[in-house]
Amino acid sequence: MFSCFKPSLQVMKKLPTSCIPHPAFLFLLLSISTFSQSLTSYVNPFIGTREMGHTFPGACLPFGFVQLSPDTDTIPYDMDGKYNPPVYRYCAGYQYDDKTIVGFSHTHFNGTGHSDLGDFLIMPTAGPLQLNPGTAAHPEQGYRSAFRHETEKAEPGYYKVHLDDPDVDAELTTTLRCGFHRYTFPKADSARIILDLIHGIYNYDGKVLWAYVRVVNDTLITGYRITSGWGRNRYMYFALAFSKPFDVYGWRNADKPVYRGFWRRFSQYSNFPEMAGKKIRAWFGFSTFKGEQVKLKIGLSAVSMEGAIANLQAEIPGWDFDKIRSEAHENWEKELSRIKIEMPGSRVKGHGSRDTSFYTAFYHVLMNPVVYQDVDGKYRGIDQEIHQAVGFVNYTTFSLWDTYRALHPLLTWLYPQRSGDMVSSMLAHYDQSAEKMLPVWSFHGNEDWCMTGYHSVSVIADAWVKGVRNFDPEQALRACVATSANKYYEGITDYMKLGFVPLERSASAASVTLEYAYDDYAISRFAEAVAEDSASGTLLQMLAGAETSKYLKRSENYKNVLDRRTGFMRPKNADGTFKPAFDPLSTSNQGFIEGNSWNYSFHVPQDIPGLITLMGGDKVFVSRLDSLFTMHLDDKYFAETEDVTRDGLIGNYVHGNEPSHHIPYLYNWTSQPWKTQAMIHKIINSMYKNAVDGLCGNDDCGQMSAWYIFSTLGFYPVCPGTDEYSIGSPCVSKATVSLPNGKTLTIIAKNLSENNIYIKSVTLRGKSLIGLVIHHKDLMEGGLLLFGMSDRH
Amino acid sequence: MFSCFKPSLQVMKKLPTSCIPHPAFLFLLLSISTFSQSLTSYVNPFIGTREMGHTFPGACLPFGFVQLSPDTDTIPYDMDGKYNPPVYRYCAGYQYDDKTIVGFSHTHFNGTGHSDLGDFLIMPTAGPLQLNPGTAAHPEQGYRSAFRHETEKAEPGYYKVHLDDPDVDAELTTTLRCGFHRYTFPKADSARIILDLIHGIYNYDGKVLWAYVRVVNDTLITGYRITSGWGRNRYMYFALAFSKPFDVYGWRNADKPVYRGFWRRFSQYSNFPEMAGKKIRAWFGFSTFKGEQVKLKIGLSAVSMEGAIANLQAEIPGWDFDKIRSEAHENWEKELSRIKIEMPGSRVKGHGSRDTSFYTAFYHVLMNPVVYQDVDGKYRGIDQEIHQAVGFVNYTTFSLWDTYRALHPLLTWLYPQRSGDMVSSMLAHYDQSAEKMLPVWSFHGNEDWCMTGYHSVSVIADAWVKGVRNFDPEQALRACVATSANKYYEGITDYMKLGFVPLERSASAASVTLEYAYDDYAISRFAEAVAEDSASGTLLQMLAGAETSKYLKRSENYKNVLDRRTGFMRPKNADGTFKPAFDPLSTSNQGFIEGNSWNYSFHVPQDIPGLITLMGGDKVFVSRLDSLFTMHLDDKYFAETEDVTRDGLIGNYVHGNEPSHHIPYLYNWTSQPWKTQAMIHKIINSMYKNAVDGLCGNDDCGQMSAWYIFSTLGFYPVCPGTDEYSIGSPCVSKATVSLPNGKTLTIIAKNLSENNIYIKSVTLRGKSLIGLVIHHKDLMEGGLLLFGMSDRH
Repeated sequence: MFSCFKPSLQVMKKLPTSCIPHPAFLFLLLSISTFSQSLTSYVNPFIGTREMGHTFPGACLPFGFVQLSPDTDTIPYDMDGKYNPPVYRYCAGYQYDDKTIVGFSHTHFNGTGHSDLGDFLIMPTAGPLQLNPGTAAHPEQGYRSAFRHETEKAEPGYYKVHLDDPDVDAELTTTLRCGFHRYTFPKADSARIILDLIHGIYNYDGKVLWAYVRVVNDTLITGYRITSGWGRNRYMYFALAFSKPFDVYGWRNADKPVYRGFWRRFSQYSNFPEMAGKKIRAWFGFSTFKGEQVKLKIGLSAVSMEGAIANLQAEIPGWDFDKIRSEAHENWEKELSRIKIEMPGSRVKGHGSRDTSFYTAFYHVLMNPVVYQDVDGKYRGIDQEIHQAVGFVNYTTFSLWDTYRALHPLLTWLYPQRSGDMVSSMLAHYDQSAEKMLPVWSFHGNEDWCMTGYHSVSVIADAWVKGVRNFDPEQALRACVATSANKYYEGITDYMKLGFVPLERSASAASVTLEYAYDDYAISRFAEAVAEDSASGTLLQMLAGAETSKYLKRSENYKNVLDRRTGFMRPKNADGTFKPAFDPLSTSNQGFIEGNSWNYSFHVPQDIPGLITLMGGDKVFVSRLDSLFTMHLDDKYFAETEDVTRDGLIGNYVHGNEPSHHIPYLYNWTSQPWKTQAMIHKIINSMYKNAVDGLCGNDDCGQMSAWYIFSTLGFYPVCPGTDEYSIGSPCVSKATVSLPNGKTLTIIAKNLSENNIYIKSVTLRGKSLIGLVIHHKDLMEGGLLLFGMSDRH
Repeated sequence: MFSCFKPSLQVMKKLPTSCIPHPAFLFLLLSISTFSQSLTSYVNPFIGTREMGHTFPGACLPFGFVQLSPDTDTIPYDMDGKYNPPVYRYCAGYQYDDKTIVGFSHTHFNGTGHSDLGDFLIMPTAGPLQLNPGTAAHPEQGYRSAFRHETEKAEPGYYKVHLDDPDVDAELTTTLRCGFHRYTFPKADSARIILDLIHGIYNYDGKVLWAYVRVVNDTLITGYRITSGWGRNRYMYFALAFSKPFDVYGWRNADKPVYRGFWRRFSQYSNFPEMAGKKIRAWFGFSTFKGEQVKLKIGLSAVSMEGAIANLQAEIPGWDFDKIRSEAHENWEKELSRIKIEMPGSRVKGHGSRDTSFYTAFYHVLMNPVVYQDVDGKYRGIDQEIHQAVGFVNYTTFSLWDTYRALHPLLTWLYPQRSGDMVSSMLAHYDQSAEKMLPVWSFHGNEDWCMTGYHSVSVIADAWVKGVRNFDPEQALRACVATSANKYYEGITDYMKLGFVPLERSASAASVTLEYAYDDYAISRFAEAVAEDSASGTLLQMLAGAETSKYLKRSENYKNVLDRRTGFMRPKNADGTFKPAFDPLSTSNQGFIEGNSWNYSFHVPQDIPGLITLMGGDKVFVSRLDSLFTMHLDDKYFAETEDVTRDGLIGNYVHGNEPSHHIPYLYNWTSQPWKTQAMIHKIINSMYKNAVDGLCGNDDCGQMSAWYIFSTLGFYPVCPGTDEYSIGSPCVSKATVSLPNGKTLTIIAKNLSENNIYIKSVTLRGKSLIGLVIHHKDLMEGGLLLFGMSDRH
């Protein structure tokens, strides 16, 4: 059934939160759908904007650094480190249920469970000067404005809303490094643009270390700020141009400034071209006639104000908003067109359009990593120096614990050049890091050490094994080896000595051990491939050969935390004894992170047959999987589960968090692979809805969405770092994938319907697959991947 | 009489504060003085280190950016803007009466009345780890150490002291951009180097916006900090190399850091190679044998850590401390040798060696401005961008209200190339400034707007008029014109409209008007000279011609604040009425800054004959001068006088502040020029002593010292911007000046003695002077300037 969200551009501005479509409306939509429709029109940027999804509806380009979006609130952080739900709630700056917009800021994360950014908030106002944002309850006390969703329109690269209080239409579009605002004002004697340099996401009193604004002339200002938020020390510069000269301007410093005698002698707060301090809010005023459009364009740079100006000049030389919007639209259309899908005749009921879910997922997939360099190739490194990217494009925002699983494999498949650039970016990070460590959770020249594992190695291995060659294998291998032997990082020294990370070293000792063992396998696959690709007898070949066996051995370390008596993974103390008083259902203080032992016990993607044997064989293993998906998780345990809604659970399986993402595919290694097929459809149908609360957990920088893309197409990279995809069950009747090598892969799920979800046969280019596996190389040859679907397994 | 300070290198380490020389000691010194002695040995860096002088005794090069000196305390600033004497007391970080040394920091101002810097404090310790400085009363509670002056030795480019608490000999020397430390340790199992990134001068809680340290390896660390002190936003980077590897290291953050989950998982405070936060103190530990010398060398840069490393590699490639010390010594020797003086046979009694006073003054003169660019020419501009200095060396630290009077004229005379580079630095500042304004009081990429006037124009005019040509005259003239019409700056708009700055616009309305009028005259001189030097009919010639007359007219504006009824300068209200209830003796709220109307009423260097006429003619004028020098200033008024000691007054004449520096020379324009001659000797003999409290006020970035150099040689630039020096009375029997054009000027004061201070004749190259004036061009021809001295006027 079509959702009321299934939209033309014109319809999308109406976005009710409950879906009771009027019959005539449905008819209209169905009529439209018979025409060839742009793929961007299937994207609903509002999916995931209520509660847990942590997506934002604003404008951006694929891999675009500037992600310009309305912030409906950003609650100050509780400095005591206490879990502060309102902060978490505003990771993306936008919550669908809010009634007011504070303003529009230019940097956002998509779907994270931690947060930062929200740089350079801009808000148009009319009326008395208010230099504080006010509150959601009392927007009239500040510059924020009430708004209504019916005035909102969001599409890839474009966002529009009517701001009720100043009676201003706000439109936003972007290029890679720049934001473009178009505000349609009422008649106003005192129209103003507010530039709030205090505003930010993951805010706390003192986050802004320093802010600076320079009025270059009456249509150009530059500036920067340095923040210490989640990113410990982040620099962001801007150049902001106005289409209309401001007549008058000023600022306030909400901080108590240092005593400086000179201000006794002339005023700095009005029409004085420099503003600086920790808590700056500036304004720029002019008068407007009714319907006057005032445009702003802003270039961002992590390097310098000069860099921001150059970015702006290069990307938005003129003032044609519609042209930039149109270019953004075409850019998205081009990327989304890499996969064209068709739905089965009878659509899956209940959760809206699969087209919209699919293309919105694809849209979210392409929202990060983002390009992190100026137009001249300069960027700010993790060593806090300015670097020149030579031979690659530098990217940032690596949420690797999430994204190594499916997002990076998806990018490696569809964007091998970008994937190689991302690897080169990671290697630059490694070179520049004081700890000689590949990224863990890094963004904007900062390493946040968030979550666990050294999963950069998985991304590198996966890229190389799948044929990505635009990075240096020797440098990469040395970086992987050094990272996996890092003496500073969580328990690695003990891990290398004991074969497991002991509880004394890490509260996540068991899951960390499992992740290290998997990562080690990825290194061994990478090393083996490099050895094969290297000239015989070279130093690199010998190095790679030696690392292959060493890391293959290390990859068996998962066995060291398997309690064979119970079949559960269980953390050990340094003396080799298992943690006593162990609860495999709990995620709290049991030696795992964001998951319980029930889920993590399946976390051996590198040796599933071995795991099955150790757990007691096929029957026991199937039974354990069945239990996972059917048992009831007590509220007590659910309360410990981070980042997911109740809907994000199937039994004790937690789709809203990542550690379990491969588990539905594990039936493939048992006697009952049909259960994988059923489970994929169940998850697809229940966990991804075309609705503002359509995501069952954080999108996690596109990992949730990438899972959806792969699984919808019928296969999934269960063990990145190998060239294998495991067959699931396709959820589209046809998909046409334009491969990056110019070939075309056509996927057809013959007879797919709501009930025909089981696979009777799979052929690739006419040949049956051997096992439920497709190799990457075969996939890249293109041709027809034909699934024969049935209602019986 | 020789002072006990008159030293060989060996003797200088003994620096008693009261001077009762033992006869044998005197004999020794007198014997030595018959040999040719190095001029550096005449420098006593301790002059001015007690109370008001605000000098520091540490090591530096001429014009050296790094000025490495012990800080005996740095009292936190009172944020409420209240006058806080202890802060003021520590402008240079060192007070002679203190008994403890906190550590050694690398940047200092010489003799300022406001403060900042104190970057990168290093302190050697032995014993238990203490990561706070402790207090002067309880040094044992922190890492600071007691010390005794008898262990101190200070000479140009070198400083030594014994730190009693750790029992460490500390020695310091420098290059332009680097500091070099040599510490001789006792046997110690836990010797440590403390690096305190909180420490600084003009400190307050929150001054350090951010600090960062990176342990590159066990002998190299890099880092930086950003401070908001007097310099509103100052960046300083370092690279610090150890001659001995540290075994262990750590840090503490005295700030409450932002909550960041990752630190749960591994410790950042011990042997972790990155440290960052607002309040960092780090330590680096090793064991030492008795007498072991551990050396540190540190490069500074305002650009980047990479820049700091490059500076260090270029300037101190090896570890030879004595070599660097010796090079520093030679560097000073070379500069001080530009002027060689001889004393009269019977020396002036009472205030120690004139040699020492002279060469210490010369030493202080050469301590700023300082070179402010990396070895590759990069520097951080006032616009907070990184620039490349092309065609000039970039300098910083311009305390122009002080230094335009004599310091810059002295540098222009002796160092025309550097003077031109300083002008180019000012022009770069102008170009980069948001306000399009030449420097007022600028340092390290910051404008502090301290004090009044736009005296950069005086420096520029003086340089050009005296033949300095290595800057662009058109750019300079345009910068002067724009600066003097700046709409943001103190009352200029009204000044241009009304002919004076009204009290409504400035609390210093009268003195500001006087300074603007003088500065305008300087511009007119500059413009006239440029017009003369320009090709006929060029745009530049026309521009310069127009500005000449315009600014000559503006220079008469001093008349607008002269109350002809009383002969006193007196501030006006905007309506043209004089301020009622006016007290010409008071410096408080009377319309003047750092001076009263009595002194400022003589502040018309550009039109002294005109002033004399307006004041009532020669007799009245002489009588007013006499009164100034003889009247008693009530304690009530003295209490209002900033920055000077009681000794800094002669009557109501305040030598310790600058506005009166030219006044002793004004008798030259009257019928009684002998009074100038007497007064010069009186000031020289009473205001400059070879003693720790030898300066009667702040040295003010060398202005007090430059006055001394000129006046000692017998002439003074009463009106910079003209090519005239006014004759005073020489205080040396002979001086040989190596002019920068290769010629030699020999000054002889024939028959000079304690009583023979009056000039009977002056000839230059055998020709009598016309009037009591020497023209710069004539001076630069060299030859003999012969004064015939007498005891009668």
